[in-house]
Amino acid sequence: MKKYNVRSLIAATVVVGLFGCATDPLPSWNDTTTKQSIVAFVESVTDPSSDSFVKVEERIATFDNDGTLWSEQPIYFQLAFAFDRIRALAPQYPEWKERQPFKAVIDGDMETVLAGGKHALLEIVMASHAGMTTAEFEEIVSEWVGTARHPKTKRLYTEMVYQPMLELLDYLRANRFKTYITSGGGVEFMRPWVGNVYGIPPEQVVGSSIQTEFEMRESGPVLVRLPAVDFIDDKAGKPVGIHKFIGRRPIAAFGNSDGDLQMLQWAAAGKGARFLLLVRHTDDAREWAYDRESHIGRLDKAWDEAKKRGWTVVDMRRDWKVVYPFERKGANQ
Amino acid sequence: MKKYNVRSLIAATVVVGLFGCATDPLPSWNDTTTKQSIVAFVESVTDPSSDSFVKVEERIATFDNDGTLWSEQPIYFQLAFAFDRIRALAPQYPEWKERQPFKAVIDGDMETVLAGGKHALLEIVMASHAGMTTAEFEEIVSEWVGTARHPKTKRLYTEMVYQPMLELLDYLRANRFKTYITSGGGVEFMRPWVGNVYGIPPEQVVGSSIQTEFEMRESGPVLVRLPAVDFIDDKAGKPVGIHKFIGRRPIAAFGNSDGDLQMLQWAAAGKGARFLLLVRHTDDAREWAYDRESHIGRLDKAWDEAKKRGWTVVDMRRDWKVVYPFERKGANQ
Repeated sequence: MKKYNVRSLIAATVVVGLFGCATDPLPSWNDTTTKQSIVAFVESVTDPSSDSFVKVEERIATFDNDGTLWSEQPIYFQLAFAFDRIRALAPQYPEWKERQPFKAVIDGDMETVLAGGKHALLEIVMASHAGMTTAEFEEIVSEWVGTARHPKTKRLYTEMVYQPMLELLDYLRANRFKTYITSGGGVEFMRPWVGNVYGIPPEQVVGSSIQTEFEMRESGPVLVRLPAVDFIDDKAGKPVGIHKFIGRRPIAAFGNSDGDLQMLQWAAAGKGARFLLLVRHTDDAREWAYDRESHIGRLDKAWDEAKKRGWTVVDMRRDWKVVYPFERKGANQ
Repeated sequence: MKKYNVRSLIAATVVVGLFGCATDPLPSWNDTTTKQSIVAFVESVTDPSSDSFVKVEERIATFDNDGTLWSEQPIYFQLAFAFDRIRALAPQYPEWKERQPFKAVIDGDMETVLAGGKHALLEIVMASHAGMTTAEFEEIVSEWVGTARHPKTKRLYTEMVYQPMLELLDYLRANRFKTYITSGGGVEFMRPWVGNVYGIPPEQVVGSSIQTEFEMRESGPVLVRLPAVDFIDDKAGKPVGIHKFIGRRPIAAFGNSDGDLQMLQWAAAGKGARFLLLVRHTDDAREWAYDRESHIGRLDKAWDEAKKRGWTVVDMRRDWKVVYPFERKGANQ
């Protein structure tokens, strides 16, 4: 353990040297109470003379992905991936032309797809996410992420991440936090790109998963993706996933919807300083505006709880100078 | 990502300063080909001018626990915990006096317990490991680990860890490896003590698990441990667990039994330099001697594979100067 301490000391010195001066670590955040609450928390848990000081190894921060780090409208981006994948696979499955929910996906008839409910979506996800090796799936995801465009902005999906949240991730890491994704999305759908986009390594991604099976082939061992749910990392599943994969309670948790409520409750219930934040989508001009009535990313019970408990709620329109990185002055348009 | 690089640079400098000089990082290893193969591997993957150089973030090393980091005879230590726990709970369950396999555990009749096979053991594990919150279980484990004694050595179980392997863990970490446990044992049985004993944080422990459920109580949220298997991290489950929890392929893997074969195959199948090692128990005087015929920690197929593939096989009697930390000169007896 000694080596950790030596490293901590050195790294802390470097961090102070790099960030301790006048540069604003959160330039895309307006100077509102929201930003002030973030900075006050980080300063208090990293100040060795503070009662709220938290040891480096306990500085765990968990972030939801859809609607918290990137957009989630008009449909979850992973669903757009699944639909694209069904259309790409359709020539190999001529029977899909006559069979729902595949026919509707191929025809671009979203109303019928969504009318099929959870069962239809599960069929689509399994048909598009299972049946290949983990290495093959990684390639498929990487290819899609590098080429597919959002229907409204015509941007790559990975360009539709929130600039203020990227700065927040950096700011926390500069203060020796370990940043995790804890998303209802598929862990293997995220791992191929979150390193480049968020600076989060594969071992710090917690998400939903399907089962895999080890198979020894002539070419060597592979892991085959099976059409069976392994774990759903949503709602009451989020604290379960956090405990299972991280084994520590986060001291800071970030979400945007009722799917994040239990994660925030779990983080809030630990001893010592805590920071809980919800992103509220209030900006129909730059992004989307939705909360209590939305089918995607509904923010209702978690918002009530935030008000009751004094958690921080981001008002996107008021609190964020820019939403996406490409809006910044001088950004490559 | 820039901050990572700055940190890496500084930490590398520190590490070179601390360890680059004449001190032997593996003093409890005899100077055999085994030790030489370890050092040669570590030097080649950390030398930026070598073709085998591996970036810091890809330096993942996975270690089995039972029989690889600590002893596993005469029974897996977690089973000793389960038996002790059944005996401690027995007054609350008077019906156990008449019911197998509990009666046999209470009577200390190991023959009958083991004759019950997997089903009996599963019943014992569920009765001893489920039904409480995760926080309560952590306390129970910590209490046991701090007090229970091994029947042969009369030592705490956590004293029966292998000194040469502790040095190996330190040596790898000094060379910026991330060290993981990947054990068939229960993840929640290991997390409470592996930080102090092995220097491995909870988020780097992969193991078997039972299901947990989030529950909101008046006192706050808890995770309740359920009597249902979630994941078995053994044999073909080890590469599955590695992929699920780490999401990277290890470049070095350490085991001692057929339960580790698929983990070693999975690690070996990656591109670039690899290091695969099996601990063979050959020392009946200082520890135990067992391999192909043993019911616990059987080493048969994995040994054949090691010979065929040129993996490193530790001969405990020949390769290790001491087995346990308490054997060292000047160690507190």
